[in-house]
Amino acid sequence: MASRTPLLLLVTALAQAQMTKPEYGGGNRLLRPGGYREWVFVGSSLGMGYKDEAAAENPAFHHVYIQAQAYRHYARTGQFPDKTMLVMEVVAPGTNASINRRGRFGDRFVGIEVAVKDTQRFPEKWAYFDFIGDGGKPLAEATPLPQKSCWNCHRQHGEVDNVFVQFYPVLRDLRPKK
Amino acid sequence: MASRTPLLLLVTALAQAQMTKPEYGGGNRLLRPGGYREWVFVGSSLGMGYKDEAAAENPAFHHVYIQAQAYRHYARTGQFPDKTMLVMEVVAPGTNASINRRGRFGDRFVGIEVAVKDTQRFPEKWAYFDFIGDGGKPLAEATPLPQKSCWNCHRQHGEVDNVFVQFYPVLRDLRPKK
Repeated sequence: MASRTPLLLLVTALAQAQMTKPEYGGGNRLLRPGGYREWVFVGSSLGMGYKDEAAAENPAFHHVYIQAQAYRHYARTGQFPDKTMLVMEVVAPGTNASINRRGRFGDRFVGIEVAVKDTQRFPEKWAYFDFIGDGGKPLAEATPLPQKSCWNCHRQHGEVDNVFVQFYPVLRDLRPKK
Repeated sequence: MASRTPLLLLVTALAQAQMTKPEYGGGNRLLRPGGYREWVFVGSSLGMGYKDEAAAENPAFHHVYIQAQAYRHYARTGQFPDKTMLVMEVVAPGTNASINRRGRFGDRFVGIEVAVKDTQRFPEKWAYFDFIGDGGKPLAEATPLPQKSCWNCHRQHGEVDNVFVQFYPVLRDLRPKK
């Protein structure tokens, strides 16, 4: 680590203190966010569904991440700041691998979906993006999904400002008490 | 945010650049690590078991975190640095809550178990700690578990240096190619 001078450490630290902001191509197309695996993890689920229908045959894990700065802002205020991004990683399950004999673990990366709060860009404040293309191809950018695909349900049922805090105990427990 | 002067931001950023080290009471008792929810999440599982036995009735989620600095060191070198800590959070599942109709989500915090690599302190390099006390009481400190409880299996089956990288695709995919 001899190359890690105090100055470099300082620059690195300062860079990390900046919140990753959403970036766009033309027409509100969101560029695929990078680096989110170093963001704060807020919750996981397996095979979550919102309709009374048969369970998926091989249900996927969902792992949800938020920028650390948005997380800390929420911890202080109970509100999500503008430019908040929530990345949902879809992960196919594994079982009976290695010494595992029962249960499931998140095994293979499938793709990501992203929720963005950007009040300057979206009159409805939040927009939703799917970066999983045809045949599972990862997309470099994505257009906002129609309101009826995600927004309506998030608006109606999200516990805090379009966010399903009720499914993320990390955020739920963190919410400042009134 | 007027109180957030550049100097304060700088001090905060520098503090965040330091890796959280394991801290001990007497007799190798590990003090419960704090702040791990801002560490890097490496994987989740539901109801994982290593024996051919009936599944648990209400299997728990496991969420595993590692310090960001240990994560980056591993990304560069494929090795876990000394003082690496892996925190496994046990989370009881929820279902049929709010609009959820099928599948499970991590719902209620149960407690943590911790793996520590500390070559100065432990001749066998890694030690394992359970911070879930009788009746689920959270412990402020914990003594190393006997070798046969965790260490043996981690030594024998962990893909990289006692760590079950095979169950953590985030670490698996990150491993530098030889």
